[in-house]
Amino acid sequence: MSDRVGIALLGYGTVGKGVVQILRDQAARFEQRTGVTFDLRHVVVRDLQKHRSESEKAEGVHRGLPFTTDAQAAINDPDVKIVVEVMGGIDPAAKYLADALKLGKHVITANKSLLAEKGPALFATARTHHACIAFEASCGGGIPIVESLTRGLLANRIDALVGIVNGTCNAILTRMTKNGWTYAQALAEAQSLGFAEADPTLDVSGADAAQKLALLAGLAFDARINPRDIHLEGITTLEPLDIKFAGELGYVVKLLAIGERTTEGKLVLRVHPTLVHHTDVLAEVSGGFNAISVYGNALGHALFYGRGAGSMPTASAVVSDLLSVGIGAAPAAFAKLRIYPDCVEQAMVEPIGDLRSRYYLRLLARDVPGTIAQISNCLGRHGISISAILQREDNGGKFVPIVITTHIAIEGNVAAALAEIDQLACIQPATVKLRIIDQPREFAES
Amino acid sequence: MSDRVGIALLGYGTVGKGVVQILRDQAARFEQRTGVTFDLRHVVVRDLQKHRSESEKAEGVHRGLPFTTDAQAAINDPDVKIVVEVMGGIDPAAKYLADALKLGKHVITANKSLLAEKGPALFATARTHHACIAFEASCGGGIPIVESLTRGLLANRIDALVGIVNGTCNAILTRMTKNGWTYAQALAEAQSLGFAEADPTLDVSGADAAQKLALLAGLAFDARINPRDIHLEGITTLEPLDIKFAGELGYVVKLLAIGERTTEGKLVLRVHPTLVHHTDVLAEVSGGFNAISVYGNALGHALFYGRGAGSMPTASAVVSDLLSVGIGAAPAAFAKLRIYPDCVEQAMVEPIGDLRSRYYLRLLARDVPGTIAQISNCLGRHGISISAILQREDNGGKFVPIVITTHIAIEGNVAAALAEIDQLACIQPATVKLRIIDQPREFAES
Repeated sequence: MSDRVGIALLGYGTVGKGVVQILRDQAARFEQRTGVTFDLRHVVVRDLQKHRSESEKAEGVHRGLPFTTDAQAAINDPDVKIVVEVMGGIDPAAKYLADALKLGKHVITANKSLLAEKGPALFATARTHHACIAFEASCGGGIPIVESLTRGLLANRIDALVGIVNGTCNAILTRMTKNGWTYAQALAEAQSLGFAEADPTLDVSGADAAQKLALLAGLAFDARINPRDIHLEGITTLEPLDIKFAGELGYVVKLLAIGERTTEGKLVLRVHPTLVHHTDVLAEVSGGFNAISVYGNALGHALFYGRGAGSMPTASAVVSDLLSVGIGAAPAAFAKLRIYPDCVEQAMVEPIGDLRSRYYLRLLARDVPGTIAQISNCLGRHGISISAILQREDNGGKFVPIVITTHIAIEGNVAAALAEIDQLACIQPATVKLRIIDQPREFAES
Repeated sequence: MSDRVGIALLGYGTVGKGVVQILRDQAARFEQRTGVTFDLRHVVVRDLQKHRSESEKAEGVHRGLPFTTDAQAAINDPDVKIVVEVMGGIDPAAKYLADALKLGKHVITANKSLLAEKGPALFATARTHHACIAFEASCGGGIPIVESLTRGLLANRIDALVGIVNGTCNAILTRMTKNGWTYAQALAEAQSLGFAEADPTLDVSGADAAQKLALLAGLAFDARINPRDIHLEGITTLEPLDIKFAGELGYVVKLLAIGERTTEGKLVLRVHPTLVHHTDVLAEVSGGFNAISVYGNALGHALFYGRGAGSMPTASAVVSDLLSVGIGAAPAAFAKLRIYPDCVEQAMVEPIGDLRSRYYLRLLARDVPGTIAQISNCLGRHGISISAILQREDNGGKFVPIVITTHIAIEGNVAAALAEIDQLACIQPATVKLRIIDQPREFAES
């Protein structure tokens, strides 16, 4: 009564090992729950000798795996129905997946860079050949956010999506906030704990979050999004001083990926450090966790929270996709849903200068009469209205920090005002500008 | 190219109106996104004249609806492929759904009482006739928790499920916590705001939460669960004093629905007011919101948060199910997945007396020498070890409150100890006993 489904696994790194672990550990349960038996026919690796000898020495599920270096043969194996790509990188992963799809084989991938780069072409190939692409693991680790956007929330017109989607940045910011550490100190700890890579650029620049935002916002807003169109600011220049001031004002600083639909149908897409009010659920997301807030026209506010990375959480998403493909639910949905990058129009992205937001500004000003007046006059000329102001008594230095939060203002005006302010004799450039996000009023809780 | 799918809607109350709103508002979007056009052929109501005349006067989507009182004819209509039940109650809803299923029609229901009561029989009927039952709206309002348990988290062996699944209780508790109100005050406000029914028993007794727990834990643990087997304590006897003491100890009191799998394969199932540490994400869930924490063996901790009730959030779940049925994903999954009440064994439920938990005890004791010694001796004799103790100076009254938190203890022993303590001359019965839930250590965040 059981369906036997052959699998080729491309890659046996952190995630690949997790996939093998779950598939072999839970085989009996999967068969009982779904009627599907997975037959792991090939594990494609680069260094055959290394993995073979490791596997021979291994105990349990990692023993005796069918390693090969011949990806093409694995993909061509007529008994392989699903190809799972957890090798990473663009080449040769893109070619392997295209080859598999052309043979009508379903593809499961955790590779957000690949999808961000080659998504439209791959999805079109899948459609032509009646195969499907499942990619839950590409965003938010084990959180079923892709599933939710493409199934559970389908009744909604989604108006906004706000996420903490990079666990490395979140872990670093959590340390900076709780311990008062500098970015460099927190990064060093994250690297020593294995949270951050030796070269952390992809994470800390916000580029990884932008790739995920491109995928998720694309599904939420029916649009094809190029990650390069997303406004990007990382966390490397954040100072503990601003995290401290934000805290005094009731905010926590988080690296947020934000997608919003304007009433004119444009998309506002951005990744940057953001002040989140401490009563917002996102403010409570600490350490390596991810969370994604979704605002739907019917649902209102929903939030999905969980581990955004790591071997087992990511493998949880890969294997859940495998099961969904195995029982036929994912292919049925994929065939019908016209929300993937091959079926939708290129996003119309609003320039960041048009953004309407509240702002946190931190200036270093000489403590002389008239300073505040000069600053507020300049802001006023640019149509920027001050919400709160915080100035401490002289700290003994020449310049003292002045913190200003604004009401809603236009980004371009704020930039112009700050350019002028930084020219003032009483100001030491460069003024720090961070954006504040407010929960939509209607969604604020009683 | 569009698939036309006929629908009969049984019921036109709060949720039914939301379903009509979404179906008609979003028709063009649904057709574009999914290729499915829904044809709302019948809206079955009891009072035809009332609804007809309301509909004639209505503007927009609620105008000109195909009302009927003949449920049987609506179900029998050969063009009706999906029957949506949002009428509530057991009879005649159960008969209508069984009739529809026997005709091979898919059924979508928001009726948790019905599923808790008649689930196994209805699911068996569905399976025999190759139809499916979708019931996302029955638990957690618009939160896609059923979808996540049956798809996105499928790779996991789920070990625990902890939820705030009744918005009425949560709103009442939030008020009691934030404003220091009594239960009666908070209930009166909830009733005046429409959060609570005139007869709030189903909600405040915890019975509604138990029905939802029966469904969700059933899916999570592959077991058939009778809500009557779930240990139940409501919120009606909670005192502001205990919420205040809990806060001083760092905890928030929430009505939690908890399901856990023991290492012996038994289930621990309970609904009761619980002390949640303020750093737990569940502690931040306030007002009418719901949240469900799931602990999977691969995923670790995940949490799903959103509006647990209301016309549009619940309709969001109903219509998302409609789309999932319309595109064929839900029927494909239903046919294969053997996790529904007709495919699984009756749960082996552990008696509440065997529960291992930490406890909050609040005694009223005469402030005389030896009182604490008597209490702690009695607890000690029953193998209960004290974690913290809080006694304020005499408040001028005859008895003063003493708060004790324990280390992990066995419920039966705690009950026995309290029976003895309440007999002591220095104690005014009855001692308040609340359970404390701790996040599993491995899931605690850095």
